[in-house]
Amino acid sequence: MEKIVSDIIHTLKQILPSHRPIPLHEPFFYGNEKKYIIDCIDSRFVSSIGNYVTEFENRISEFTGSAFAVATSNGTSALHAALITAGVQPGDEVLMPALTFIATANAAVYCGAVPHFIDSCPKTIGIDIEKLETYLETATHIKNNTLINNSTGRPVRAIIPVHIFGMPVDMNRLQDLCQKFRLTIIEDAAESIGSFCGTRHTGTFGSCGTLSFNGNKTITTGGGGAVLCKDEDTAHRLKHLTTTARCTKARWEYFHDRTGFNYRMPNINAALGCAQLEQLPQFLTKKRELAARYAKAFDSVKGVHMLKEPEYGKSNFWLNTLILDKPDRKLLEDILETTNSMGIQTRPVWALMNTLPMYRKCPSMPLECAWKLENSIINIPSSINLLD
Amino acid sequence: MEKIVSDIIHTLKQILPSHRPIPLHEPFFYGNEKKYIIDCIDSRFVSSIGNYVTEFENRISEFTGSAFAVATSNGTSALHAALITAGVQPGDEVLMPALTFIATANAAVYCGAVPHFIDSCPKTIGIDIEKLETYLETATHIKNNTLINNSTGRPVRAIIPVHIFGMPVDMNRLQDLCQKFRLTIIEDAAESIGSFCGTRHTGTFGSCGTLSFNGNKTITTGGGGAVLCKDEDTAHRLKHLTTTARCTKARWEYFHDRTGFNYRMPNINAALGCAQLEQLPQFLTKKRELAARYAKAFDSVKGVHMLKEPEYGKSNFWLNTLILDKPDRKLLEDILETTNSMGIQTRPVWALMNTLPMYRKCPSMPLECAWKLENSIINIPSSINLLD
Repeated sequence: MEKIVSDIIHTLKQILPSHRPIPLHEPFFYGNEKKYIIDCIDSRFVSSIGNYVTEFENRISEFTGSAFAVATSNGTSALHAALITAGVQPGDEVLMPALTFIATANAAVYCGAVPHFIDSCPKTIGIDIEKLETYLETATHIKNNTLINNSTGRPVRAIIPVHIFGMPVDMNRLQDLCQKFRLTIIEDAAESIGSFCGTRHTGTFGSCGTLSFNGNKTITTGGGGAVLCKDEDTAHRLKHLTTTARCTKARWEYFHDRTGFNYRMPNINAALGCAQLEQLPQFLTKKRELAARYAKAFDSVKGVHMLKEPEYGKSNFWLNTLILDKPDRKLLEDILETTNSMGIQTRPVWALMNTLPMYRKCPSMPLECAWKLENSIINIPSSINLLD
Repeated sequence: MEKIVSDIIHTLKQILPSHRPIPLHEPFFYGNEKKYIIDCIDSRFVSSIGNYVTEFENRISEFTGSAFAVATSNGTSALHAALITAGVQPGDEVLMPALTFIATANAAVYCGAVPHFIDSCPKTIGIDIEKLETYLETATHIKNNTLINNSTGRPVRAIIPVHIFGMPVDMNRLQDLCQKFRLTIIEDAAESIGSFCGTRHTGTFGSCGTLSFNGNKTITTGGGGAVLCKDEDTAHRLKHLTTTARCTKARWEYFHDRTGFNYRMPNINAALGCAQLEQLPQFLTKKRELAARYAKAFDSVKGVHMLKEPEYGKSNFWLNTLILDKPDRKLLEDILETTNSMGIQTRPVWALMNTLPMYRKCPSMPLECAWKLENSIINIPSSINLLD
């Protein structure tokens, strides 16, 4: 075994409890989960009607400081609805990192738009704003107040920054760039509930921002998501679009004024979410403690470093991220194989979007850093109970 | 008040309990709902991993006699996944009744296909198979084994029969027609769990069939659906498509081979579904009893009749349906207004799909009967507890 592998194992063992297996990320239900769900069953409001959905939306607004929040069936549907509502049209290009979960690219494609891939920043693993600016200056031009891709002639309508593993992108800086290039921002904050740029929550900078409450996230509704937005009109449009676009002119009339979607969050899932949100501050404290322990312990391990919080913001440390100093696929696979075989669940980052068969031909800037990160990143166990 | 209105009120009052309001359709949780959901919370498997999803799929297969069932986030996503899997392509036309819930048309549009509307049968309120045959003989031709619309030149790839309010379409007869015209059948059985043609469950005749478990349906998972299919390969493709098309070549690799969807049913919703399925036979018995009571009571009311089960099959009587002998919008509105204002929830049928702004220009056969039904149908309270 290479020394670096044994050093990593040794360090993980120092921090992690002795039981095996240790999953990458588990949900915990210490609060009112059962109470609220039993209330749903007793009241028989388990589906599209019921108070928990509205309550959940209000609490999400309150926690994030977003003016409005609209609950959805999951993070992917949230992103799809956000893109449509922000004005993404068939034939548009949508800028996004090559290094992201598949939902980011899929949501653009559901709109009939084309993903256009951006390189990663080595420090934050999010989009590299500086490189992006240089790239856009040569690869695009502005015509009639719209950014146009010089090669394809298509409008480059929007950009989706992704706060990967909870690590915030520098949104203030990105906003300046987007103003210059006439880009609409839709923030993919699926992984970053509890992450901030300054004192402002991720997902509240863009025209819309989206959250996910899948079972592997910091808090869960079983399956669920939400769109954050700034004004009542947008919130209404999002709610309308995600509830089959049914018009409410008459109590009993079934009239729909556009092709909408069934992207509702059921009341029973929202009930779970309300209970989870109550515990979010504690969960975030525990995640921060674990990240600090990892950072300290891995500080002395040669050849590898922990992804660190940027000076401009706060991470929720959803998934702790170990990075090889030098990209090395074989070494990465060795580490994954060794840790997983001993019951410590670790995983690599996603395959770059531009390597997937259906997105191979999408426009892209050069992706040097993303390629390096793909062969350097290992996520290590990050559940909130690991220091208990 | 017109005599017919007072007769209807009088008859409803005879059958319905005296408390108000009486909703159109309520879910009931008499069984293991709390037990199974608490088990989810205790095991912490509430999301995409967990045994209840597989168990729910197995029990759906068993109940319907379908070889395979794949659980989804709702009936709309089930239909979308079924259409893609059955081979519907962008630019295809998909035949469907003009008289249906919006999801039928939307699902086709999500595929990039064009709805093509069919008239209704006055007896079953489903598609009129006889009229359809006459229409297809003049409006289409077969070329290279594909049905082509003579006017638009587009392939007419598939047909979606809808078992409206649980009333089964004559699937044996439809299968003969579809063989003749090279049409793939995808059954929208969203409303018809427990409805049969002969001894065969609705949704098991087509290439795929879809179910819904929304809160207003005979049994509910909060929000949920399922696709029924005949062979393992189709079931695998449906599961793959509805779970982001992630490939499972390696344990930890994130590789996706097509643009998939996040259409999973969370484990906690499947747990609810398992408990509900256990009670489905009782629910169906109670619904049948209520329908029989309504049929007998309305038999003597002039100017109106109950929608009756066809001789070739069995309805689940999801929503009991009163039909005016002569279409009359004003009278219909009077009846709706009077019943709803006294706390007896009734509703009209959906606006015809071809009257909605986004589907106005879709191809259509003449819709005489659908127009009549739109101005004749009143759904009346149909919950399973009404005779208790």
